[in-house]
Amino acid sequence: MNHPTNPGAALAEFAAGLRVEDLPPTVVARTEELFLDWAASALAAKGLHPVPQFEAFAAAMGPADGKAEILVSRARTSAYFAAWVNAASSHLVEQDDLHNSSVLHPATVVFPAALAAAQDVGASGAELIAAAVAGYEAGIRIGEFLGRSHYRIFHTTATVGTLAAAVAVGRVLRLSPAQMVHALGSAGTQAAGLWEFLRDAADSKQLHTAHAAASGLAAAYLARDGVTGAQRILDGAKGLAAGMSSDADPARLTDRLGSRWALLETSFKFHASCRHTHPAADALLAVLQRERLSHSDIASVVTRVHQGAIDVLGAVTVPTTVHQAKFSMGTVLGLIAVHGKAGLEEFRDHALTDPAVAAFRDKVRMTLDADVDAAYPQRWLGRVEVTTRTGTSFHGAIDEPKGDPGNTLTRAELEDKTRRLARFSGAASDAEIAALIARVWNLHTAASVAALL
Amino acid sequence: MNHPTNPGAALAEFAAGLRVEDLPPTVVARTEELFLDWAASALAAKGLHPVPQFEAFAAAMGPADGKAEILVSRARTSAYFAAWVNAASSHLVEQDDLHNSSVLHPATVVFPAALAAAQDVGASGAELIAAAVAGYEAGIRIGEFLGRSHYRIFHTTATVGTLAAAVAVGRVLRLSPAQMVHALGSAGTQAAGLWEFLRDAADSKQLHTAHAAASGLAAAYLARDGVTGAQRILDGAKGLAAGMSSDADPARLTDRLGSRWALLETSFKFHASCRHTHPAADALLAVLQRERLSHSDIASVVTRVHQGAIDVLGAVTVPTTVHQAKFSMGTVLGLIAVHGKAGLEEFRDHALTDPAVAAFRDKVRMTLDADVDAAYPQRWLGRVEVTTRTGTSFHGAIDEPKGDPGNTLTRAELEDKTRRLARFSGAASDAEIAALIARVWNLHTAASVAALL
Repeated sequence: MNHPTNPGAALAEFAAGLRVEDLPPTVVARTEELFLDWAASALAAKGLHPVPQFEAFAAAMGPADGKAEILVSRARTSAYFAAWVNAASSHLVEQDDLHNSSVLHPATVVFPAALAAAQDVGASGAELIAAAVAGYEAGIRIGEFLGRSHYRIFHTTATVGTLAAAVAVGRVLRLSPAQMVHALGSAGTQAAGLWEFLRDAADSKQLHTAHAAASGLAAAYLARDGVTGAQRILDGAKGLAAGMSSDADPARLTDRLGSRWALLETSFKFHASCRHTHPAADALLAVLQRERLSHSDIASVVTRVHQGAIDVLGAVTVPTTVHQAKFSMGTVLGLIAVHGKAGLEEFRDHALTDPAVAAFRDKVRMTLDADVDAAYPQRWLGRVEVTTRTGTSFHGAIDEPKGDPGNTLTRAELEDKTRRLARFSGAASDAEIAALIARVWNLHTAASVAALL
Repeated sequence: MNHPTNPGAALAEFAAGLRVEDLPPTVVARTEELFLDWAASALAAKGLHPVPQFEAFAAAMGPADGKAEILVSRARTSAYFAAWVNAASSHLVEQDDLHNSSVLHPATVVFPAALAAAQDVGASGAELIAAAVAGYEAGIRIGEFLGRSHYRIFHTTATVGTLAAAVAVGRVLRLSPAQMVHALGSAGTQAAGLWEFLRDAADSKQLHTAHAAASGLAAAYLARDGVTGAQRILDGAKGLAAGMSSDADPARLTDRLGSRWALLETSFKFHASCRHTHPAADALLAVLQRERLSHSDIASVVTRVHQGAIDVLGAVTVPTTVHQAKFSMGTVLGLIAVHGKAGLEEFRDHALTDPAVAAFRDKVRMTLDADVDAAYPQRWLGRVEVTTRTGTSFHGAIDEPKGDPGNTLTRAELEDKTRRLARFSGAASDAEIAALIARVWNLHTAASVAALL
């Protein structure tokens, strides 16, 4: 490390210097998989509130044409507004990826910004991959640095997402290490996003990612053009951690740079709900299958969870929107118990209207578990106690929820998920998705990423 | 108040319902004065780093034409990017207004957003005035609500500015009270801006106001189109105060709505420096004039200040840029002592290069004064102890710095300041400024604000 006293500068230098030739093949391949999974999440949101409102604002405030692509509409605009709309749309259906220990959704902030900039400057697929890896590696470490205290009030994907997007775009723009520090400074001082909206089922989660991707992109472009930022926006006396964390750990910022590939630790989402519900969902499913139980056999479910799950999901009692239902532990478990899965169709068709799901929801409660909490956020353990109407109790335990790195989705499963998500919204035909998949599996050799669809 | 348990909603309802007919004539007239003063601040920054970079980004990412006006270039673009550039430019030369007890610079975030939206939708001058008053009244109260703890780490004009801009634009767009709550929610969850940049003389202060005005504008437009926000973004358990303040006082949010006009408490800036230097600058000037002292007579100056001045100015020792020199107490007092004033020309020509100013700077130190600190932020008291080379000490005291409401600038003085600022940058001729002044003094009867210059 060349900046022993400024870990943020060391991180910036690492990100600015990342070359695709230096990446292990597994990292390149996984980046392609994460990219496909991200594009599918964006496409799945076509036509769903509030995505059309974001498209309308971009059309009113941005140019009528440009080099960057809005995935849901296939309209072209400037890089700024393409990043803005694609980030909003890719964080709506709760199918985008998550990194456990940072509690960051990297794809929905990194890829919209990196893709828009890559299309803007004519970068290759390999350059896009290097940029995305830079964004993931930096964003994840910054999320870990800010710690659990940050996540209690702030939506890490919104705040840290601004910095992750700036780093990715900075890499697309080939910023020098010094410029990358400025980009981090300008991004960090725009970093924002509060959890307050969730209780009200408000539309801020999509605004958060839109804001992060676009503000981060702006920070990198401004740095390229000579606009300066704080040298220590992360750990300075009036920086991000000083204002928004009480347990920040600067050592995390430079944790094994170049040898630990944090991107590989990212989880794909199988269920279409908040990731905090997934461990319990998988554990319940295992009990139901093992004991051959039906939802009507069950009197109560206790999910033993980490504090972060209570912090996020505890605000939701009876969900009023499909999106809010994705943050209702009882609803997710109800869909699993009654319908066998909690995918986009189940949420759309049953989450708010099926009396059996509502009845099951009311049988579920969360309780803090010391062991689960101690393992978090590095590991997201699923523990459920299921009690039947006849008074028998069953214990369910899952250590790696479906989609976690140790229990990941294969390329075939990802292709299937992509087709399902595109069909859900009608944003692309099966033939178009087949072409998209072929293009993404060859991203590392693509001379251009000008047209994704 | 119709929302006894949600002061933010009460504030939103007040702002949404503000009509120019209900405003006292003094409020209407003062709004025109603040508007002229703001336009002058924007014009003065033409050509100065980093304003051209902001113009270039807007040109690259925004439309090539539109209804909204960029003041420094007279180019037209969308409301979003006009707000973005005009906010950046109007906060550069440190001549824009300040509200004492909120420590908020209202003009530089409220007017860019309100003017851009008014030009976008074809609003009248009276509507623009009502919108600006709504933005000032809401922003000032939100700044007071967040308190001194917020300002220690966060640049209130950046964070609260986002909400003030949203309220002003929301009033232009005639949002309903419920929509105004959503606009506040979407603005508050984008609120950002850290003081960390100041030590490095980085360009973030202009990015802060650009971000605030544009993000606030977006929040209001999105609310008009049905995008929802948190109902209690200000005082909720995971809202702004929970995340960014330790001394928030919700009672301030609704302090005498409709009877106290906080806009009238706003100060014009006389010196072209950080407002925290003004009380001491005026007190020193009074001593020098009263005792007929020259800078060369003086051995030392002790300025007795409030803690906020030390927090902001203490990071600056030897300034490296003209902008950073505006945050150097010693430099400001040096310009006053050596050149008799601290205006734009003095900063440009002498702040970094005049050995006499540098020598005087090193004779100045700040010390916390309990009485001055107790009066702050409601009153910004100036107290200096001047010791001559012959060992005599003089005490200087100013209770209302030049430009404060009790010691305000007359319309003639504001016209003179406007001419000086426009001449400084060459952004407009004297004839154009005369026409601008005439237009602004008739703003309350103007059918349109489509073309300011």
